[in-house]
Amino acid sequence: MASEQLPDDHYRISYEEIHLDIAETARQIRQTFAPDLMVAIGGGGFFPARVLRTFLKREGSNGKLVNVPIQAIGLSLYEDLGQAEKALQSSGPSSLGKIGVEVVRTQWLDAPKRDVKDGNAETQLHGGLLGKNILIVDEVDDSRTTLRYAYNELLSDVRKALEALTPEQRAQTPPTRFAIFVVHNKLRSKKGSLPIVCQRKDENGTVVSGVWYFAAETTGNIWIEYPWEQDDILEHNRLTALAKKLGQNGKRDSE
Amino acid sequence: MASEQLPDDHYRISYEEIHLDIAETARQIRQTFAPDLMVAIGGGGFFPARVLRTFLKREGSNGKLVNVPIQAIGLSLYEDLGQAEKALQSSGPSSLGKIGVEVVRTQWLDAPKRDVKDGNAETQLHGGLLGKNILIVDEVDDSRTTLRYAYNELLSDVRKALEALTPEQRAQTPPTRFAIFVVHNKLRSKKGSLPIVCQRKDENGTVVSGVWYFAAETTGNIWIEYPWEQDDILEHNRLTALAKKLGQNGKRDSE
Repeated sequence: MASEQLPDDHYRISYEEIHLDIAETARQIRQTFAPDLMVAIGGGGFFPARVLRTFLKREGSNGKLVNVPIQAIGLSLYEDLGQAEKALQSSGPSSLGKIGVEVVRTQWLDAPKRDVKDGNAETQLHGGLLGKNILIVDEVDDSRTTLRYAYNELLSDVRKALEALTPEQRAQTPPTRFAIFVVHNKLRSKKGSLPIVCQRKDENGTVVSGVWYFAAETTGNIWIEYPWEQDDILEHNRLTALAKKLGQNGKRDSE
Repeated sequence: MASEQLPDDHYRISYEEIHLDIAETARQIRQTFAPDLMVAIGGGGFFPARVLRTFLKREGSNGKLVNVPIQAIGLSLYEDLGQAEKALQSSGPSSLGKIGVEVVRTQWLDAPKRDVKDGNAETQLHGGLLGKNILIVDEVDDSRTTLRYAYNELLSDVRKALEALTPEQRAQTPPTRFAIFVVHNKLRSKKGSLPIVCQRKDENGTVVSGVWYFAAETTGNIWIEYPWEQDDILEHNRLTALAKKLGQNGKRDSE
């Protein structure tokens, strides 16, 4: 039964609205950061990264538009894992199940390319991060724990790759820069901190420390209902429209 | 200016319709295949995989619903790569730029977990594929080249992992099964073939050869306009609705 009341104070948003929000922010990202590579944090970052790709196309050498490549990483907050997954992490070869670990890697960049036939390990400069403008993509910046983890680990990969170069190679490598894109940034106390700055060079001049930050929308500390999470997308869209009509979209935008 | 004519015979589909189509097929997948793991082919498989995750939740040991994990792989048809990407592939450490190579891996499962600190390589049974029901996810089955590549390579990873086991370990490993999900299967001549079967055991009884196949929709050999590719999502939605109204949705469904 369709009712004229909202069931809760959640903030509902449709696919179309998110698509439009991403398009708008993408314009800003193109002008100020111009990413060479996206790193999508799965599963929430998958949809935003795919839509961003549509709006971040660059002109290639032959005048044709080319896509910004997307690499995916899988990260979960340990507290969100199921019992079976926790057991797997504790018994597995990695030390990810240890007490105090907040973020679990379920997938990382497949940096070392291995030719399985002859066992030759060929390194690929940590997923080809060096000298790139790298845009980390997720759906929401909530506690900031996952984003901080992703940024710190990617930065660490870059530093290790730089250390492995000769001084001459390092001098020839363009700076590596990081930016973050989220659909929603919740204004709340963050557990993780990020060195959000505009531009600063570190001691060896090749990593820009600090990270650009783009959020398509800033919200209060609210429950966000994403369309891709909905069992019933038609009811979700009805409630999204109803919230607008009633002027109760729950967003409590703090901008 | 909004016009009452369609600009072309492309098949347009909205986010909402794809979400509903995926929901319907997910019911069938849950009953007949029950995946333990999704492997999303980026970037097209990202959106379907994320929506599938909503509908493929399983009951965990504590009665709570748990997500089916998503791993991502990146595959491009070599002919679709830009000049710069082709040059990169030819000059890189891999042999992917060779003539005759149709599919280029831009990312694979990060199978070997490496502790970078002490250089210890710990294998993780090829991304944890063994003994799982693995659902490969992409947006469209067009020439079938990419899907054939993904299936054959994942199957090869599984066989290698099985070979590395002792006979006792092999006997304790449940069968590994593969299925494919695409939003659209185009009825056209396929360059790649897939052994689509229901169930068959191979000689050592641990890999089920053949692959389950699910398509949310079957279409003619037409141009499909996906919502996530649209510069102008509002115009896309208008044309999608107009096509329905005019009874010219371009789908030419051949079912």
